[in-house]
Amino acid sequence: MKESLLGYVSEHRSKFEESLKELLRIPSISTAPERETDVARAADWLADRLLSVGLDRAEIMPTPGHPVVYGEWKGAGDAAPTLLVYGHYDVQPTDPDEEWESNPFEPIVRDGNLYARGASDNKGQLFTHVAATEAFFQTLGEPPVNLKFMLEGEEEIGSRHLDGFVKQNADLLTCDVALISDTHMVDAETPAIVTGVRGLAYMEVIVQGPRTDLHSGSYGGVVHNPIQVVAEIMAALHDEDGQVTIPGFYDRVRSLSEVERAEIARVPFDEAVFLEQEVGAPALWAGEAGYTPLERIGARPTLEIHGIGGGFTGEGSKTVIPARAWAKVSMRLVPDQDPREIAELFEKHIFELAPSTVSVEVRSHGLADAAVVDVDTPAMQSAVYALKKAFGAEPVFIRAGGTLPVVALLGNILKVPVIMMGFGLPDDNLHAPNEKLSLDNFYRGIQASIHFMQRLAGQE
Amino acid sequence: MKESLLGYVSEHRSKFEESLKELLRIPSISTAPERETDVARAADWLADRLLSVGLDRAEIMPTPGHPVVYGEWKGAGDAAPTLLVYGHYDVQPTDPDEEWESNPFEPIVRDGNLYARGASDNKGQLFTHVAATEAFFQTLGEPPVNLKFMLEGEEEIGSRHLDGFVKQNADLLTCDVALISDTHMVDAETPAIVTGVRGLAYMEVIVQGPRTDLHSGSYGGVVHNPIQVVAEIMAALHDEDGQVTIPGFYDRVRSLSEVERAEIARVPFDEAVFLEQEVGAPALWAGEAGYTPLERIGARPTLEIHGIGGGFTGEGSKTVIPARAWAKVSMRLVPDQDPREIAELFEKHIFELAPSTVSVEVRSHGLADAAVVDVDTPAMQSAVYALKKAFGAEPVFIRAGGTLPVVALLGNILKVPVIMMGFGLPDDNLHAPNEKLSLDNFYRGIQASIHFMQRLAGQE
Repeated sequence: MKESLLGYVSEHRSKFEESLKELLRIPSISTAPERETDVARAADWLADRLLSVGLDRAEIMPTPGHPVVYGEWKGAGDAAPTLLVYGHYDVQPTDPDEEWESNPFEPIVRDGNLYARGASDNKGQLFTHVAATEAFFQTLGEPPVNLKFMLEGEEEIGSRHLDGFVKQNADLLTCDVALISDTHMVDAETPAIVTGVRGLAYMEVIVQGPRTDLHSGSYGGVVHNPIQVVAEIMAALHDEDGQVTIPGFYDRVRSLSEVERAEIARVPFDEAVFLEQEVGAPALWAGEAGYTPLERIGARPTLEIHGIGGGFTGEGSKTVIPARAWAKVSMRLVPDQDPREIAELFEKHIFELAPSTVSVEVRSHGLADAAVVDVDTPAMQSAVYALKKAFGAEPVFIRAGGTLPVVALLGNILKVPVIMMGFGLPDDNLHAPNEKLSLDNFYRGIQASIHFMQRLAGQE
Repeated sequence: MKESLLGYVSEHRSKFEESLKELLRIPSISTAPERETDVARAADWLADRLLSVGLDRAEIMPTPGHPVVYGEWKGAGDAAPTLLVYGHYDVQPTDPDEEWESNPFEPIVRDGNLYARGASDNKGQLFTHVAATEAFFQTLGEPPVNLKFMLEGEEEIGSRHLDGFVKQNADLLTCDVALISDTHMVDAETPAIVTGVRGLAYMEVIVQGPRTDLHSGSYGGVVHNPIQVVAEIMAALHDEDGQVTIPGFYDRVRSLSEVERAEIARVPFDEAVFLEQEVGAPALWAGEAGYTPLERIGARPTLEIHGIGGGFTGEGSKTVIPARAWAKVSMRLVPDQDPREIAELFEKHIFELAPSTVSVEVRSHGLADAAVVDVDTPAMQSAVYALKKAFGAEPVFIRAGGTLPVVALLGNILKVPVIMMGFGLPDDNLHAPNEKLSLDNFYRGIQASIHFMQRLAGQE
């Protein structure tokens, strides 16, 4: 049985790859209003695909934003467990476009990697479970577990309507285990299960100074330059020890236990290799004093500036004091920081930092809760088993630095174990030019999905 | 005689206005490579106009950049003084375009003001002398002084080739007095003669961090964010007293004498009106401690950030650590600061501020010398006389905050008195949207030019 399943996957590699490329060609950038029809096209494509692989229901369920694709197959019966697969079909913007070596929406294979926006995050990863489902229907006639798919179109814009969707459809989504493949492994040889994701508070600060742009020769020295103000505010958000200066920011941070620190320390991490192969900067940043790089990435809160702008951005020179300047900032949060409270503390701090010479506005672009998951469940043991079978190595448990709002939602609303079993690699260039997915990981991911479902059902 | 001259000006107001509009319709933005042919068109237009009003020579003289329009008429004879009129036919860019109430290159009159890019800076002002020249030829048959015009096309990009041009053509440009109308009055009732302009060092700082944009969830806290670095560097350029922190920056600054401070204090300045009518910010900036606003604007050096950029600049949110960020900065300099030395001190300071986690590049976009002119010359007395006649009020002497590289060049190379007699107003929106010129000032400027030439020749 198992042989025929894995044989099917092996025989249909190029078919799976071509299918995925179809999906990757759809530029479903959720943050771009002009891409709304493309986002809808990606949803349609997935709903069709879920039906064609064998599910008996698949539909586009509207939200106030981009829709959720919901699919289900209950043929395994009441005695079998029900698995809810989460994924997202929206992708990040592609800028800076000039740094892509090939068209982000014309997938191309180079050196065993599939390059396209969304290849790893998350179309390629979510597709492993679609392919695994197909393999079951085509070889054994049906999967060993009941299946539900919840594929959203707003993950890259903070899953802003998923909370309402899950609450309103909690009965529909009833399941025993939730599975998410939207994380990455430690390296190509070391699979990983993510046991925690960080929350997020994404804010924008807009500084308005003079009514209109002014000539610096006539007004410099007496009008407070909004760029100077925004730079001074941004510079004041970290102290010399790399700590975030917002009063109360760390108050609710759950301290890392010695056990957790020891677990993180077990994860292979070569700073020189990381710097050279992944980062490419002259040196790493010391960041928050007293914590290792891996602790700072996954287990401690951070604050980053994602964009800044103001004044003359063309070639050459223009001597202007601009009327306004702005910065986009997000904070990655850990248990038990509350993103709503952090957003308030941020806003309060910004207003305290702002001089009386300018007007300052603070906007929120999205909030998400952090989450940690229980490692001591049968579902987690199934995931460990599946990854070991597919990748031939024991997976490690890691805290991810990124944010997956769905983890806290599923844990809190559906109250089921959430398994984060991802097939990406650290150098997949998520959110950056030249995003890729290792095709080897893609096929092993399909195998891992098959092993996981079999094991959940007690059939391996 | 005088009556017929002024009568001619009065009768031909609409003709002068229409002529000026023709020139203003040419988008001669010198910093924009795609506007090169427009810059050339403006030069051609002016050369044609100089010939048509009566000069006996006018030509386009090439430089390594945009050309200089040179015109001359020597008919007044060796006994008469020779006046060199300087102006510039290039204009600033128009961004932010959405804030213009009318097309910047479709001049339109509203409430007695002519709105267009370049209306005040400098096409409208330089045109007063062309019109005055025409009035002489049309009424008296010829001007009372020998005339030379040097109209450049690179003032808005730092007059980068004017130094070489003046040196190479020093014989051609020989004169007794140089006249520049590229400054503004104190207000509509108070004409002004500028006795000093500041120098300039325009620099750009580019911070390169990681090789490519990175996902903040996976790299935040361990990779130094280039936006954070550029913000911290920019924030460090002023101390709490508003002083520029570059070591050595103030070393060569010539102190203001008590006489100079008293002269500046005599200039009418209502802080509340200035704030409300010109600036429109919530409050003025204290700037450099120990100096009045007018001293800070005109007589003290300043540092301003003109543009900043990096990361995600679109709508909404993207969680990226960008590969690079940049800022454009200029320093306005006073005697005896040397812009070359200041550029070096700036670069050195930036490198000292830059952390080892990033690569930093510093570029120069242009340097210009400050200048002060002698107020105790017959030419200056002629200017005082001319302004008093045209505007009906005694002019005040002021230091301008802006930069006119030509002032130091003419003073140092030609060694002649330089008269800065401008007809702009402080709210003309130079370098900003909705630039305008008061038409009343335009006509009075033509009258002032006539009186100045007559007085120079001893004919008034």
